[in-house]
Amino acid sequence: MARTGRRPGDADTRGAILAAARSAFAEHGYHSATIRGIAGEAGVDPALVHHYFGTKEDLFGAAISLPLRPAEAAELALAGGMEAVGLNLTRLFFSIWENPASRDSLLALLRGAFTTEQAAQSLREFFQSSLMERIADQIQSSDAGLRVALVAAHLVGIAVLRYVVRFEALRRVSVDELVEAVAPRVQSYLTG
Amino acid sequence: MARTGRRPGDADTRGAILAAARSAFAEHGYHSATIRGIAGEAGVDPALVHHYFGTKEDLFGAAISLPLRPAEAAELALAGGMEAVGLNLTRLFFSIWENPASRDSLLALLRGAFTTEQAAQSLREFFQSSLMERIADQIQSSDAGLRVALVAAHLVGIAVLRYVVRFEALRRVSVDELVEAVAPRVQSYLTG
Repeated sequence: MARTGRRPGDADTRGAILAAARSAFAEHGYHSATIRGIAGEAGVDPALVHHYFGTKEDLFGAAISLPLRPAEAAELALAGGMEAVGLNLTRLFFSIWENPASRDSLLALLRGAFTTEQAAQSLREFFQSSLMERIADQIQSSDAGLRVALVAAHLVGIAVLRYVVRFEALRRVSVDELVEAVAPRVQSYLTG
Repeated sequence: MARTGRRPGDADTRGAILAAARSAFAEHGYHSATIRGIAGEAGVDPALVHHYFGTKEDLFGAAISLPLRPAEAAELALAGGMEAVGLNLTRLFFSIWENPASRDSLLALLRGAFTTEQAAQSLREFFQSSLMERIADQIQSSDAGLRVALVAAHLVGIAVLRYVVRFEALRRVSVDELVEAVAPRVQSYLTG
């Protein structure tokens, strides 16, 4: 493969890979899309996709403008131990949603889920394997999966009513106030 | 106004009013749409709209296929007193969402909110005044509005992840299991 000058060539190539990734995830779902197929669509070697973006999970995260790798997000949420997971996960969630680029991408992803089953499938497959299972693995409970899903539901619901439907009571509060109100309920689902 | 035979005429007229209502709420928002305007659009007298559907609130409820009047929904949620509001509100919410006609309408309403500000406005204006304020009025707390909005967020979030994104952990549980897990958190927001 011909190598081009570093800076502009890199940016173009990265953009082509991200565009191919978005289209592949939308068309095939997260689990069925492959790095090889995405590389082919972008006209690059699969190794270059890994070189730029890491794993498929990292590539999906980059395609939806997550400001950190999914594994790092799970680590951050769990870094303070299970007694602080409610606080750390809630803080992390809103820090991502308050970032305009991430918010726009997450809203587009949710909007897509209302429209096509393939988009809904990508969304659930990605968040299930990248974040929810990593947290559920730390919970000593037979219904760990349900507990984590109810936490996800609570946080996503706040995002929908704060950023989309825009209920006044949820728009006017700061992230700190939200975290203070919500973190104890998140904690009680995960360790209560 | 010419009166037609009761049965088919009634059904046609009701249908015309509902169609005019849906279009008026979508175009002007809930608060700005008027019974007079809707009646004009449907080619009937405003008194007939009141006769068939009651208040504007009831008409909006009918337009989105709610199986009961909003005031009745609030009454049902509050009927057991504030110590049972978590359980009664959560049960009521899922009994409405498990009704296919209501669910389709509510999903269409939410999908619309992702697409146009007018749809988001109608949604927040209607639920704010028909349900959330009635419940907030029963809470002795300076942040009653936020508490009720967080409850709404939690319930809506479960609906989005159970019926749209369809996370396995939320799809496979029964409504009774959901209510058992969620009602205590709803209760703690409202009276905790």
